[in-house]
Amino acid sequence: MIVVLDQGCSLKDKAAVVRQIEQQGGRLLVSVVGKETHIGLIDSVAQSLATTISEMPGVAEIRPVAPPYPHVSREHQPEPTEVRVGDVVIGGRETVVIAGPCSVESRDQLEAVARSVAADGARMLRGGAFKPRSSPYSFQGLGEEGLALLSHMSVETGLPVVTEVVAPEDVDLVGRYADMLQIGARNMQNFRLLSAVGGHEKPVLLKRGISSTVEELLLAAEYVVSAGNPRVVLCERGIRTFETTTRNTLDISAVPVLKERTHLPVMVDPSHAAGQRDLVPHLARAGIAGGADGLIVEVHNDPDSALSDGPQSLTLDGFGEMMSQLAAISAAMGRPLVRVLS
Amino acid sequence: MIVVLDQGCSLKDKAAVVRQIEQQGGRLLVSVVGKETHIGLIDSVAQSLATTISEMPGVAEIRPVAPPYPHVSREHQPEPTEVRVGDVVIGGRETVVIAGPCSVESRDQLEAVARSVAADGARMLRGGAFKPRSSPYSFQGLGEEGLALLSHMSVETGLPVVTEVVAPEDVDLVGRYADMLQIGARNMQNFRLLSAVGGHEKPVLLKRGISSTVEELLLAAEYVVSAGNPRVVLCERGIRTFETTTRNTLDISAVPVLKERTHLPVMVDPSHAAGQRDLVPHLARAGIAGGADGLIVEVHNDPDSALSDGPQSLTLDGFGEMMSQLAAISAAMGRPLVRVLS
Amino acid sequence: MIVVLDQGCSLKDKAAVVRQIEQQGGRLLVSVVGKETHIGLIDSVAQSLATTISEMPGVAEIRPVAPPYPHVSREHQPEPTEVRVGDVVIGGRETVVIAGPCSVESRDQLEAVARSVAADGARMLRGGAFKPRSSPYSFQGLGEEGLALLSHMSVETGLPVVTEVVAPEDVDLVGRYADMLQIGARNMQNFRLLSAVGGHEKPVLLKRGISSTVEELLLAAEYVVSAGNPRVVLCERGIRTFETTTRNTLDISAVPVLKERTHLPVMVDPSHAAGQRDLVPHLARAGIAGGADGLIVEVHNDPDSALSDGPQSLTLDGFGEMMSQLAAISAAMGRPLVRVLS
Amino acid sequence: MIVVLDQGCSLKDKAAVVRQIEQQGGRLLVSVVGKETHIGLIDSVAQSLATTISEMPGVAEIRPVAPPYPHVSREHQPEPTEVRVGDVVIGGRETVVIAGPCSVESRDQLEAVARSVAADGARMLRGGAFKPRSSPYSFQGLGEEGLALLSHMSVETGLPVVTEVVAPEDVDLVGRYADMLQIGARNMQNFRLLSAVGGHEKPVLLKRGISSTVEELLLAAEYVVSAGNPRVVLCERGIRTFETTTRNTLDISAVPVLKERTHLPVMVDPSHAAGQRDLVPHLARAGIAGGADGLIVEVHNDPDSALSDGPQSLTLDGFGEMMSQLAAISAAMGRPLVRVLS
Repeated sequence: MIVVLDQGCSLKDKAAVVRQIEQQGGRLLVSVVGKETHIGLIDSVAQSLATTISEMPGVAEIRPVAPPYPHVSREHQPEPTEVRVGDVVIGGRETVVIAGPCSVESRDQLEAVARSVAADGARMLRGGAFKPRSSPYSFQGLGEEGLALLSHMSVETGLPVVTEVVAPEDVDLVGRYADMLQIGARNMQNFRLLSAVGGHEKPVLLKRGISSTVEELLLAAEYVVSAGNPRVVLCERGIRTFETTTRNTLDISAVPVLKERTHLPVMVDPSHAAGQRDLVPHLARAGIAGGADGLIVEVHNDPDSALSDGPQSLTLDGFGEMMSQLAAISAAMGRPLVRVLS
Repeated sequence: MIVVLDQGCSLKDKAAVVRQIEQQGGRLLVSVVGKETHIGLIDSVAQSLATTISEMPGVAEIRPVAPPYPHVSREHQPEPTEVRVGDVVIGGRETVVIAGPCSVESRDQLEAVARSVAADGARMLRGGAFKPRSSPYSFQGLGEEGLALLSHMSVETGLPVVTEVVAPEDVDLVGRYADMLQIGARNMQNFRLLSAVGGHEKPVLLKRGISSTVEELLLAAEYVVSAGNPRVVLCERGIRTFETTTRNTLDISAVPVLKERTHLPVMVDPSHAAGQRDLVPHLARAGIAGGADGLIVEVHNDPDSALSDGPQSLTLDGFGEMMSQLAAISAAMGRPLVRVLS
Repeated sequence: MIVVLDQGCSLKDKAAVVRQIEQQGGRLLVSVVGKETHIGLIDSVAQSLATTISEMPGVAEIRPVAPPYPHVSREHQPEPTEVRVGDVVIGGRETVVIAGPCSVESRDQLEAVARSVAADGARMLRGGAFKPRSSPYSFQGLGEEGLALLSHMSVETGLPVVTEVVAPEDVDLVGRYADMLQIGARNMQNFRLLSAVGGHEKPVLLKRGISSTVEELLLAAEYVVSAGNPRVVLCERGIRTFETTTRNTLDISAVPVLKERTHLPVMVDPSHAAGQRDLVPHLARAGIAGGADGLIVEVHNDPDSALSDGPQSLTLDGFGEMMSQLAAISAAMGRPLVRVLS
Repeated sequence: MIVVLDQGCSLKDKAAVVRQIEQQGGRLLVSVVGKETHIGLIDSVAQSLATTISEMPGVAEIRPVAPPYPHVSREHQPEPTEVRVGDVVIGGRETVVIAGPCSVESRDQLEAVARSVAADGARMLRGGAFKPRSSPYSFQGLGEEGLALLSHMSVETGLPVVTEVVAPEDVDLVGRYADMLQIGARNMQNFRLLSAVGGHEKPVLLKRGISSTVEELLLAAEYVVSAGNPRVVLCERGIRTFETTTRNTLDISAVPVLKERTHLPVMVDPSHAAGQRDLVPHLARAGIAGGADGLIVEVHNDPDSALSDGPQSLTLDGFGEMMSQLAAISAAMGRPLVRVLS
C-alpha cells in the first residue's frame, strides 16, 4: 500500500500519518517521486489502518501496491521513460549501442577501443574498474585508476561513460567519474547498494541477475526508484539454464515482457549471454528486433590477451561489421542508429 | 565409427563386412545417404576391428564418429541443406513462414484460417490431427478426419501441409495426407518414432524437446538422417527454465549455435515459446533477425474458443500485422518473405 | 469431469450416455477402475451437459476433475496403494530395493550381478533389454535375447524382474518375460505407450522425465490408470538443472510432495540422478529418509567395461556396503529392509 | 598460483617478493592462514615469473592453484575442519540443529521460540535482524534492536546465536552481538562482504546462492578463508529450477559432493528449500541421511502471523516432532543429536 500525500501537505500532517502507522506496528518507507511524497507501507498492514489513514488530513490517495513495483509499472506511468546520459537518450527514438572493454586494463587499451567504437557508431563507452570475480585470485580491476582513464577517454571521444559500482561505499567515488552507474548481475539483489544508487543523481544501468525472475528485476528497480532516483535502465544479459553451449541463455522474451510491464528502457547485453564472440552479432540483431532500446557490448583491441572475458569480446573489426548489420535491423524497426560526427 | 562402402560394393562384400562386425559382437546400423551406403557401429567397437574392416573389399572409408552426429554436422557437409516441401524451399534464400491452428477442429475453422494466412503470405499450412496432451482428459485431436481436412485445404490453397505424427504405427497414415511430418517436442527422444520417419520419404520437421540440449537435438536428427531420410528441418520452440512469465524460454542463441554445427535448416516456433499472443510478433522478429530460416506460428480465427493453445494463437488480423513487420526484418536480413500470387 | 456409471449399468444405458456426449461434440475416454466404469470427458464440456448426464439412467455420479488427475489423487483415495510384483509388495511396510545392471549384456554378467544383489538383500532384479539412447551409434540393448536372460535369472534367484519397454508394439513381448514394465524418463510423455501399458495386466514403474514437473508425472500416471491399469509405481530419478557436478539433480522434495498428492508408491533412482558411483549410497540413504518406498539402483560386476552407465554403477561390493547403511536408515524409518532366505 | 612464505620470512624479503610481482604487472592478494603467509597471484601470471619467485629468499613453496579454491579444498587439507561456535562444534561427531524464527519480531516471540527449541534439542539459535527482501515494501528487520534481543536470549538459553549480515559496514556491529555471522544466499557473491567477514574473528555460515554452482560456493568460501578467517560452514538451501511445487529444489546431492571436495562442514536448510512447513521434516531427515553435519530450521510460535516466511516455519510442536524423527536418523548415521541439560 502506498499513501500519497497532498502536494502541499504540512510537515505536521505528514508526521501524524507516520506516527499513526508506527503506532500500529507498521513499518514504512518515505520517498519523493516527482512532486509527490509517497509513504510505502509493508505488506501486512490491516485494511482498517488503510481506511483510517485515507481520512487523515494531508492524505491525497491510498494506492494498493498492485503490481508490487508501483513506481516502475506501466500502470503507474503508461508513457515510456527516456533516460538521458550526457547528450544520449536511452529509450527514445534512437537505438543506443554502448561498447568498450570488459575491464579497463591500460590507457593504450582503452584509447584504442574507445576511438574505434566511437568511429563505428557506439554512443557510450563501457569499461570495468571494479570487477566482481568468482575467484579471489582473478583480476579485480584497476579501481580508481581505471575510473580516471574512463573519464579521460570520455572527454577525448565525447562518449558518456558507464561503469560498475560494487559497494555502497564506492558510489560517490564512481559517481564522480562516471556518467552512469552500472549494477552488475551479481548485485541485483544487493539491496543496500540499490538504495545507495537510488540516493545518487546519476542514472543507473541495472542488470538482471542470472537467475532472477522478471518480477525480481522489477522489484530491484523499484528499490532504486523508490529511494529517489527515477533514471533506471534495465538490462537483460542471459539467465542460467541447463543448456551449456552458451555461457548463459539470452532470455529474449524478457524484452517484450519488460516493455509491457514497465515504462523503463530495456537494453540487451549479448556478450555475457553468449560467452563467445561469434554468437554476439546474432544475439545483438535479435535483441533489437525483439524490441530492445539498445545494446551493451564488450569489445577489445586484443581479445586473446584480455584480462577478463576475452572469448566473448568482439574485435575492433568485428564490432564494425556488427554495427553495419544493426544499422539495417534498427532501420527496419523504425529506431535507427544515429551516427554522430565529431 | 561409420564404415562407408564403395558405391559399387557388391551385396556379398557388404554381407561380409556385416558378418565380420557381428562376429565380434558389434552392433550396427545400415543407412543409405545419397548414393553412399553407411554402416554405423556402436561406440565400443575396438580399434583392431576398425583396422580389419578398413582393409576389406568394398570398403571405401572408415570415418570416426566425431562429432557424434556425423551426418548432420557442418564438418561433414559445409554447404547448407535446402529442404523442399512441395514447391517451398526451407533453408534457401527465402524466409518461410508456416501458419495454422494448433488443432484442426472443423472444416470451417481450418478453411477460415488457411485462406487468411495464405493471403497474408504464409507458405505452408500447419494443424494438429493427433495431439499429444499432458492430460488424458484434454482434446486429443480429430485423427484421420483432421488429416483429410488438412489435405483438402492444401489443395484449395496451394499450401503444403505439415502435421504431427506421434507413433511409429501412424507414420504411413500421416504420410499419405501430409507433405511434411512433424516430430513434436515431447517425442524428440522417441527413438522408434525417429527411426520410423527416417524410413519415410517425406521431409521431417523436428522440434527440440523442452529440456533437450542442442547436442541432443542434433543426435535426434542423426537418428532420422542415419535411417535414410536426409530432409530434416530443426525447430527451436523454447526450453524449460525457472522463469514463469512465459510458457517456455525461447533459446534464441540456439539458432546461431545450430547453424554453426549443422547444415540443416533451423526454424523458430515463437507461439509455444511465448505462450501468450502479444509476445509472438516480438519473438518472431527476433527469430528471423537471429538467423532462422523461417517460423512456424499458431493462428486461429476465434482463439478464445480454441480447443487447444488459444491464448498463444494469433488472430487472423494479428497474423497479418506480424507479417508486415517480418517483411521489413526479413528484407534487412537479405532473405525476403516471398508473396505468391494465386 | 468423470461420469461414474452404476455398477450394474446396462450396455444400452452406457451407450446412451456415450451418444449423448458425442452428439454434443464431446470427446471421451472410457475406463474401468476396480469395479467402476468411468467415462472421462474432455475439459471443455459445458455445465449444461453435465447436468443432463447426471440425470440419465445408469449414471451413479458426476465427479469434477479436480485435481486434474482424479484416479491417482489422494483426495480420490486416501489410503496408500500397495503394488504387488510377484511376492514383493511395493508401498507396504517394507523398504524395497531393486538392483541390477543398466543393460543386460550377457548371461555371465547378469548371473554374477543377480546372484550377488539377491544375496545382499535386493528384492527385485532390473536390467535393460531395449535401451533408448541419445545417439543412434550407442548400444541399443540385446532385445528379446536380453528379456529371456532376465526371465531365466528371475527363476534362478526368485527375484521378480522389471525392464523397460520403449514402444507400444513391444508391450506384449516385454510383458511375457517381465514381472513389471518400466516406462523410462524419455517416454514419460509418450502417451501412446502410456495407454498401451495401461491396457496390460502387469504393474508399471513410471519414471519422471528429466524436465517434467510433479504435476506432469501425475498426469502421466493418470493416463495409465485411466486406461485400466491401477498398479503404478512412480520413480523420481533426478531433474535437469544448471548444476553440472552431478548428471542430474535428485529432486528429493518430490518424494514427500508426491506422497502428499497421490496414493501411489514412490521410489527413488539414485544412480541416474548422481551419474557417479560414489554419490549413490548418500542419495540412496537420503531417498529412504525422505520417505521413499524403495530404490532402484544400477549394479555391475565390472563397471569399467559396462556397455552403458558404467560410471554410475555400483560394484558388487559397493552394493553390499550400501545395503548395510540402508538397513540402519530403513529401520530408523520404521520400514525395514527384509532379508529373504533362499 | 600461491606463494607460501617461510614462517620466519622477514618483512624485507616479503616486500621484495611483492615488488617483484607488481613490477611484472601482476596483481596479488596476501593472506595469513594459520601460521603461513600466502601471496595469491592472479591467473594470468607467466610461468617465468613463477620460477623467478620460487628462487627468492623467504619463499618456501609455490603452489599451483588447482583446484581453484586451494584453501578450502580437500586436497589441501584431507582432515575435516571442525568449527567451534561457543561450546558447540559443527563438523564434529555431533549432528547440530540450529533453530529459530526467520525474523526477530519481538522479545516475546523470540523468547517463546528460543526456550522451546532449546528444550527440544536445538544447539544454536537463529533469527534475522537485517532482512534482505525482494520488495522494498516488505519488512526489513528490527536492526540493532533485533541483535540485542538475540544476544539477550542467547544468555538466557545458553544457545550461541547466528544472524545474517548484509553489508560490510555492518560486520562489526553484528559481530558484537552474534556468535556466528551468516552470509545469505543473495549475498553469496557479494565479494566485499565476503572479504569483510573474512577479516572478522567470528565464524561464518555461508549459504549457497539459489543459482550458484557448487564450484561458485567453494570459490565464495575461498574469498572468506583467503582473507584470513578459516572458520566457515557451508549451507545448501535449495536451488532455482523449473519445478514450482516447492519454493526451491533442495540439491541433496550437493551435500556429498561438497564433503568430497572440501574439508569445511556442510549444513542443510530444509525450510527455505521447501517453502512449506509440512515438507520440512522430510527434507531434514534426508539432509542428515545424505551426510550433512547439521541443519538450520525456521520455527515460529505463531507462524500464521509471522512477518516473514510464515508458511515454511515449523510450529513449536512441529519442531519437537521433527527432532524425535531426527534423533533416530542421526543415531543410524552414527552422529547423534546431543541433548544438553540446562
